[in-house]
Amino acid sequence: MSEQRLASLDSSIVSRLPAYSVSLFDAKTEKGLTFEQIAQHLGRAEVAVAAMFYGQAQASAEDVEKLSEILGVPKEAIAKQMMGFPDRGRAGPMPPVEPLIYRLYEVVQNYGYAFKAVLNEKFGDGIMSAICFNTKVEKEVDENGAPWVVITLRGKWLPFSRF
Amino acid sequence: MSEQRLASLDSSIVSRLPAYSVSLFDAKTEKGLTFEQIAQHLGRAEVAVAAMFYGQAQASAEDVEKLSEILGVPKEAIAKQMMGFPDRGRAGPMPPVEPLIYRLYEVVQNYGYAFKAVLNEKFGDGIMSAICFNTKVEKEVDENGAPWVVITLRGKWLPFSRF
Amino acid sequence: MSEQRLASLDSSIVSRLPAYSVSLFDAKTEKGLTFEQIAQHLGRAEVAVAAMFYGQAQASAEDVEKLSEILGVPKEAIAKQMMGFPDRGRAGPMPPVEPLIYRLYEVVQNYGYAFKAVLNEKFGDGIMSAICFNTKVEKEVDENGAPWVVITLRGKWLPFSRF
Amino acid sequence: MSEQRLASLDSSIVSRLPAYSVSLFDAKTEKGLTFEQIAQHLGRAEVAVAAMFYGQAQASAEDVEKLSEILGVPKEAIAKQMMGFPDRGRAGPMPPVEPLIYRLYEVVQNYGYAFKAVLNEKFGDGIMSAICFNTKVEKEVDENGAPWVVITLRGKWLPFSRF
Amino acid sequence: MSEQRLASLDSSIVSRLPAYSVSLFDAKTEKGLTFEQIAQHLGRAEVAVAAMFYGQAQASAEDVEKLSEILGVPKEAIAKQMMGFPDRGRAGPMPPVEPLIYRLYEVVQNYGYAFKAVLNEKFGDGIMSAICFNTKVEKEVDENGAPWVVITLRGKWLPFSRF
Amino acid sequence: MSEQRLASLDSSIVSRLPAYSVSLFDAKTEKGLTFEQIAQHLGRAEVAVAAMFYGQAQASAEDVEKLSEILGVPKEAIAKQMMGFPDRGRAGPMPPVEPLIYRLYEVVQNYGYAFKAVLNEKFGDGIMSAICFNTKVEKEVDENGAPWVVITLRGKWLPFSRF
Amino acid sequence: MSEQRLASLDSSIVSRLPAYSVSLFDAKTEKGLTFEQIAQHLGRAEVAVAAMFYGQAQASAEDVEKLSEILGVPKEAIAKQMMGFPDRGRAGPMPPVEPLIYRLYEVVQNYGYAFKAVLNEKFGDGIMSAICFNTKVEKEVDENGAPWVVITLRGKWLPFSRF
Amino acid sequence: MSEQRLASLDSSIVSRLPAYSVSLFDAKTEKGLTFEQIAQHLGRAEVAVAAMFYGQAQASAEDVEKLSEILGVPKEAIAKQMMGFPDRGRAGPMPPVEPLIYRLYEVVQNYGYAFKAVLNEKFGDGIMSAICFNTKVEKEVDENGAPWVVITLRGKWLPFSRF
Amino acid sequence: MSEQRLASLDSSIVSRLPAYSVSLFDAKTEKGLTFEQIAQHLGRAEVAVAAMFYGQAQASAEDVEKLSEILGVPKEAIAKQMMGFPDRGRAGPMPPVEPLIYRLYEVVQNYGYAFKAVLNEKFGDGIMSAICFNTKVEKEVDENGAPWVVITLRGKWLPFSRF
Amino acid sequence: MSEQRLASLDSSIVSRLPAYSVSLFDAKTEKGLTFEQIAQHLGRAEVAVAAMFYGQAQASAEDVEKLSEILGVPKEAIAKQMMGFPDRGRAGPMPPVEPLIYRLYEVVQNYGYAFKAVLNEKFGDGIMSAICFNTKVEKEVDENGAPWVVITLRGKWLPFSRF
Repeated sequence: MSEQRLASLDSSIVSRLPAYSVSLFDAKTEKGLTFEQIAQHLGRAEVAVAAMFYGQAQASAEDVEKLSEILGVPKEAIAKQMMGFPDRGRAGPMPPVEPLIYRLYEVVQNYGYAFKAVLNEKFGDGIMSAICFNTKVEKEVDENGAPWVVITLRGKWLPFSRF
Repeated sequence: MSEQRLASLDSSIVSRLPAYSVSLFDAKTEKGLTFEQIAQHLGRAEVAVAAMFYGQAQASAEDVEKLSEILGVPKEAIAKQMMGFPDRGRAGPMPPVEPLIYRLYEVVQNYGYAFKAVLNEKFGDGIMSAICFNTKVEKEVDENGAPWVVITLRGKWLPFSRF
Repeated sequence: MSEQRLASLDSSIVSRLPAYSVSLFDAKTEKGLTFEQIAQHLGRAEVAVAAMFYGQAQASAEDVEKLSEILGVPKEAIAKQMMGFPDRGRAGPMPPVEPLIYRLYEVVQNYGYAFKAVLNEKFGDGIMSAICFNTKVEKEVDENGAPWVVITLRGKWLPFSRF
Repeated sequence: MSEQRLASLDSSIVSRLPAYSVSLFDAKTEKGLTFEQIAQHLGRAEVAVAAMFYGQAQASAEDVEKLSEILGVPKEAIAKQMMGFPDRGRAGPMPPVEPLIYRLYEVVQNYGYAFKAVLNEKFGDGIMSAICFNTKVEKEVDENGAPWVVITLRGKWLPFSRF
Repeated sequence: MSEQRLASLDSSIVSRLPAYSVSLFDAKTEKGLTFEQIAQHLGRAEVAVAAMFYGQAQASAEDVEKLSEILGVPKEAIAKQMMGFPDRGRAGPMPPVEPLIYRLYEVVQNYGYAFKAVLNEKFGDGIMSAICFNTKVEKEVDENGAPWVVITLRGKWLPFSRF
Repeated sequence: MSEQRLASLDSSIVSRLPAYSVSLFDAKTEKGLTFEQIAQHLGRAEVAVAAMFYGQAQASAEDVEKLSEILGVPKEAIAKQMMGFPDRGRAGPMPPVEPLIYRLYEVVQNYGYAFKAVLNEKFGDGIMSAICFNTKVEKEVDENGAPWVVITLRGKWLPFSRF
Repeated sequence: MSEQRLASLDSSIVSRLPAYSVSLFDAKTEKGLTFEQIAQHLGRAEVAVAAMFYGQAQASAEDVEKLSEILGVPKEAIAKQMMGFPDRGRAGPMPPVEPLIYRLYEVVQNYGYAFKAVLNEKFGDGIMSAICFNTKVEKEVDENGAPWVVITLRGKWLPFSRF
Repeated sequence: MSEQRLASLDSSIVSRLPAYSVSLFDAKTEKGLTFEQIAQHLGRAEVAVAAMFYGQAQASAEDVEKLSEILGVPKEAIAKQMMGFPDRGRAGPMPPVEPLIYRLYEVVQNYGYAFKAVLNEKFGDGIMSAICFNTKVEKEVDENGAPWVVITLRGKWLPFSRF
Repeated sequence: MSEQRLASLDSSIVSRLPAYSVSLFDAKTEKGLTFEQIAQHLGRAEVAVAAMFYGQAQASAEDVEKLSEILGVPKEAIAKQMMGFPDRGRAGPMPPVEPLIYRLYEVVQNYGYAFKAVLNEKFGDGIMSAICFNTKVEKEVDENGAPWVVITLRGKWLPFSRF
Repeated sequence: MSEQRLASLDSSIVSRLPAYSVSLFDAKTEKGLTFEQIAQHLGRAEVAVAAMFYGQAQASAEDVEKLSEILGVPKEAIAKQMMGFPDRGRAGPMPPVEPLIYRLYEVVQNYGYAFKAVLNEKFGDGIMSAICFNTKVEKEVDENGAPWVVITLRGKWLPFSRF
C-alpha cells in the first residue's frame, strides 16, 4: 500500500468532532499508519477503529493503552474522553454531501423498502439492530482485474415485543 | 416459513409508487408467494425482485414473462411500465421514519466517515458504486440460537478521474 | 366513563393511515367501545391496541379474531393487512403539531441528554430498545384531587457491540 | 459501579450549552462522581440533576450550595447563571441523531397518536403537562438476567379550557 | 356590519380540516351569520367558536345542540366528530404564509425572548399555559378614527416542577 | 419580588445577539434590577425594554441616557449601536424550542385561522400590524390564588389597498 | 399582441388555488382576453386583477359584476368566494422554483439588506407595508430595441411604534 | 436628515459578510455619512452602494478610489477584495426574519404568479433578468403627509431560447 | 435501437405535471417513438422536446402541428396548454432522489465554486444564462468500447449591470 | 486578460473549506495568476485546478510539486492535506444562493427529467458517472460579438447491474 494512502482529517470538519479526533489523526499521519495497521495492533475491526477516531465508538481501557503505544500519544490525554460515552451521529450532514457517503445513503433510499420486505418475510416483524451490530469492509477483484468493495452489515434481529 | 409472513403494501404508500406495484403485490398476496419463491422462479436476487415490486429496478422481458407466469398477472398489463426506466428514490421519506429502514440509515449516519476513511485507505480516492452494485440478505443463527441479519453490499470501486 | 369519551379518527389524517384504520375506528365508534374495553377483550395493553388501530403495530391471528368479535367487523376484511408488516412512523408530522403529542416530544427535546447521561452511567454505552419495548398509561389522582398521567416506557437495554 | 462509567461532555456540544456546563462536568469528572451520587447529596432526582448540568433546569440556592460542596466548585462561579432562567431545548438537534435519544423520539413518532387516543379516553380533551412534570429512570433485570430500562414520565393532566 | 363580511372556507384548505368544517362553513354562509352572532347564541367566545369551525376545539353536547339550531345542520351529522377529540395544529403551514397570521407569528419571533424575560421576572421559572387558556379579540378606535385590534391572551402560569 | 428573579443571558445565545446585549444584561445583573424597574425609569413598557436588551427594538437618545444612568454603563459604549436600526428576528430559532416561547407559537398555530376569521369579520380584509403595535404583560390572580398571565397585543388595523 | 399570449393555468397548480381560479382562467382563455383588457374593463391594475385570479386579492361587488360581464361567467358562481377573505400565500412553493418568480426572490435575497439600509436612512426604523401597497408592471424599450421590465413596488412607510 | 439615521452593522451578522464590510461600515459611522452622500460621491445608485458594503456587488477601481477618499480607508486595505468577484446571497437567512426584508419577500410570495402572468402576456415566455438589472428607492409623500416608499425594479427581458 | 428503449411516465409523477404530459407520453409509447425521432420531425433538439413533454418548455404553433402529426394526437387537445406559458421547475423534488438526476446535481454541488471561479476569470462578474440557453446530449465510445455521455450546456454570458 | 480578473476567496466561506484553501488563494492573488495559467503549468484542466483550490479534488505528488513552484508555497505546507482524501460537497449551501451557481442548479431542476429521458433512450437504464467524469469551460463569441459560456460535462455511462 502506497504511503500517501492515509485518511486524514479535513480541517473544516473539526468543530463537529470531539477534541481527541484531531490528536489521533495527527499522530496517525505522523506515524504513517493505516487503520488496518492500527486495527491489527488493537485486535479490533478496521471500521470500528476508524469510528473511534471520529468519536462514534467507545474505547476500552485496553484500546487506549494500545492506541497510546502505537500512536505515541500520552494515554492520559485521550483516556477520559475516549472511554466516555460517545455523542454519536453528528460527524457529517444528512443527507450526506460527500459522494462516497452519499452512495451508501442512496442504497438505503432506493432499496430501503426492498430490504424491509425481504427481512420481514425472512424474520417476521422487527428490525436489524444497529447497536448489537458489526460491520467490515473487504476488497475483491473481478475477472477483469477491477476492484469491488464488499461491505458486510451484520446486526442482531430484534422482533417487536408483543404487549 | 409460516403462511402469514408475506410482505404486502400499505395502502398509504401507494401514491408514491408506480401503478403496477399494487397489481404485483395483490397477486403475490393472493398466490401466497414470498419474494424468495419469486426470486427463485426468476433466477434473480431476492432484494432485486422486491426492488422491482417497489418500482426501484427495471425488469427484463424474461422477468416479465416469468412474473406473469408465477403471479398470474397478464403480461401486457405490466410489461410496458416494468420494462421502462424506473423513476427511483421516491418510495419513502428521507430521513426514514420506518424503524427498520431507519436503522440502515443510522448505520450510514454513524459509520459514514469511518467507511470513507477505510475505503480511501484500501482503494484510494473514489466511491463504491451504487449502480454497478448488488446486494443480498442472509440469515445467521448464533450460538444462543438468536437470529442475525447479514446484509452484503457489493459495488464496483470507481476512482475519481484525473483531468 | 361518559359515553362521548371515545377517540375517533380525524378525516384529514386518513390518507396517512392504512385502509383498515377507518373501518376499525368506525366500528369502535358505532359499538361505543373504549380502547380499554377492547384491550381487555384482547388481553393486550391499551396503548398497543390503539397503536394497531393507527397501523403502528402488527396483529396476531388471535387479535384479529377477537377484534372481529368485539367490533363486528368481518375477519377477512382486516386480517391480511393487519397481520402484515406495519409501515410505521407516518401517522403524524414530526415535529408534532398536536399539543398532546408535542409535550411528549418536548420531554425528549429537553431531557434527551439528561436521559442519555443517566442511562450511560447506569448501564454503560448503549440504548434503550424501542422495539423490544412496551409501554403503559396510568392515571393517578394527587392529594388535591387533580389527575396526573403516568406513562411508563420499558425497553431492553442493548449495549453497543464491540467489534 | 466501575470507575469509567461517568458521563462527560463531548467537546463539540459545548457551544450549545451555558458556560457553567463545562465547569460542572469537569468537576464531576475530576471528583469521579456519578449523577446518582450527586442527586443523593442534593436530595433531588437523578434526571433533574443531569438536566441542570445540561442547562435544562433551574437550580435553587440550596442546590448551588450543595453542588459547590460536593464538586468543589466555588459557589459564586455558578450561582448567578444556574439560578437564572434556563433557555431550554437547544442542547441537541431534533430529530435527534444520537442513537439513544433517537429511540425516545421514535417512541413518540410511532406511539404518539396511540398515547393521545388512550389519554383522551381516560382523561378527556387536554394534555399531559411537560412542565408540571417529573421523570425517573430505573433498572430492572428480567428472568434471563438481561437489563431493562424503565423510564417513568409523570405529568399533571391539563384539560383544555372552555371559553 | 355589511353582508359580505363573512369568513368562508378557501377550497384549497379543505383537505387539512375535518369533514364537518365544510358543512359548518357552508351553513354559516347560507344563513349569513357572523361568528359573533353564533358565539352569542352559544354563550361562548368568538375565537373559540371559530376554532371549533376549523377543528381546533372540542364542542360540548350543548354547543352541538345550539349550532344545529342556529345553522340548521342536523345534529347527528356533526355531533360525533365535533364532540370527539380534536387533532389540532394542522390547519395551516408554519411558518404561516397568510399575511394576517404571519404578523402574529412575527410578534412571537421578535418579542419571544422579551416575553420570556419579563414573564420569568414576574412569575419565576415556568410557562404561560396554552391549554388552560382563553383569548379574545376586540376593536378599538383611536382619536383619529383609525381602528386597532386588541388581542388578549390569558393563560394560567405553570411553574416548572422541582423534582 | 425576590432578588434572584432576574432574567439574564444564556451564554450560548450570545452569538445571535448584538454586542451590546451582553453589556446591558451584565450591568442589569450587577445592579440587581428587573425590567420593571428599568422600564419605570425610562417611562417605557416592560416588554419594549426587554426587546431593546435583545436587540429587537431601537433606543432613542433619551433611552440611552437613562439606561446609562440606571445601569452605570458609559453612554458612548452603547449609544451608536442601540440607536441604530435593529436587525430583528434572529434571537431564537423558529419553531421555538424554548417551552415558554413555544406556547406562544402554539397559540398562533392552533388559533391562527380562528383569529383571521374573526378579524376579517370585524374589520374586513387586512391585517393587524406588528409594526404599528404595542404589547404588555400583566399578572392576574384567580379566585383560588393561582396566577394567570395576561398578554395584550394591540396593533393598528391595516386594510389591503385596492389598486 | 398575438393571440397565443394568454396566461393560463397549469393543471398541476390547481389544488393550491381556490375553486373559482379554474373557472376564471377557463373563461379568460375561451374569450381570448388578456389581463390588460380585463383590467381596463374593471378600472383596476393589471397585477391586482391577475392576483384576484390566483386567489390573492379580494374582489368588490363591482369587480364581480364586471368580471361576470366580460368573461361571461354567472355572477353567483363566483361572487361568494371572490368577495370572501382570501387565504393568501399558498399559490407556489418558496423558495420559488419557477425561473421568473425566482429572479424576483433573488432580488430580495441579494439586495434585501441594501434595501433595508437605504430605507432606514431615508425613513427611520420601520417597514414598507405590503398591505397598504400597490404595484404595477411596465414595458420599456432601450436604445437597442431591447425590452426591459419595470416593476414598481409602492408601499406606505410604517414606523415601529414606540411603547 | 438627523444625525442618528445611519445604517450600521449588527455584530451578529458579521460572520456572514466579507471582512471589508466591517471596515466600511465602521468608517461610514465615524464619518457620519449616509449611503446617499456616498452614492453621490461615487456617481452610483444608493442601493448599489449599500449592496457593495454588504458584499453583494463588485466595485470598480474608480469606486475603490472614491470610497477610500470619502471614508478615509486606505485603498490597499479594501481594493483586492472589493474588486474581486462577490460571493452573493448569503447576507441573511431566507425566508427573511427581518420584518422589513420579509415584506419584500411577502410581495413575491403573494404576487409572484400574478407578476408572471402579466409579464408573460406583455413579453412572452421568459424572465426579467436580476443580473442585467438595476433598482432604486424613492420617497413620496401623499396628500395626508404620510410617507410612501417607491421601489423600482428594472431588468432586461430575456426570452427563453428556442432550441 | 431496441424497441423497449422508450422513456415513459411513472404514474406517481403525474400529479406534478401538466395534463398534456400524460397524453403525449401515452401517444409516444403507442407509436413506439424515441425523442430522437420526434426531435428530427420537429427540427428541434432532443432535450428541448423531452422538456416540452415534461411541461418545462413552450411549444410553438408549428411544434404542436408536427407533434400532432407524428403522435396522432388531435391538435386542439394539446395546443392551448402547450403554447401557454410553462410553470417550470416542479417536475421532481430537489435535492433530486433519482440517481441519474442526482449525479447532475452532485456536479453542481462539488464543482459549483470551481465553475464560478473559472467563469469569473474568463468573463468577469456575471452569470451564464439558463434562459438564453441551449443544451444537447451526445454519446461517445472510448477506446475500450465503453460509452460516455457528453452533455453540453451553452448559455449567454450576462455581466452584472453597474448602476 | 485584465489584471483584476482573479478569483479570490470570500472570507465568510473560509470555515467551510480545508485550511490550505486560504494559503493557495492568497499565493495566487499575490502572484497575480489565473487558474488558466496555473492549469497550463500543471498540465491539468482549469476546472480541476479550481476544484483543488476549493478542496474538491485530490492533488498528486506532481501537482503539489508544480503548485509549490508556481505559487511559491512551501511544498510541505500543503502536501499532506492536498494529497489526502478530499471531504467533498461542503463548499457552498444547496440550493445555491450564489446567482452563478444557482443557474447551473436551475438547469438540473428544469431539465433533469428531460436529460434522464433522453439518456435512458440513448443508453438504457443507468447513470452518467460524476466520478469517472471530467468537465471543461469554454468561451464562444456569437455573430453579434456577445460572449457565450460552453460547459461540457463528460461522464462514463454506468448501466444498473442486473442481480
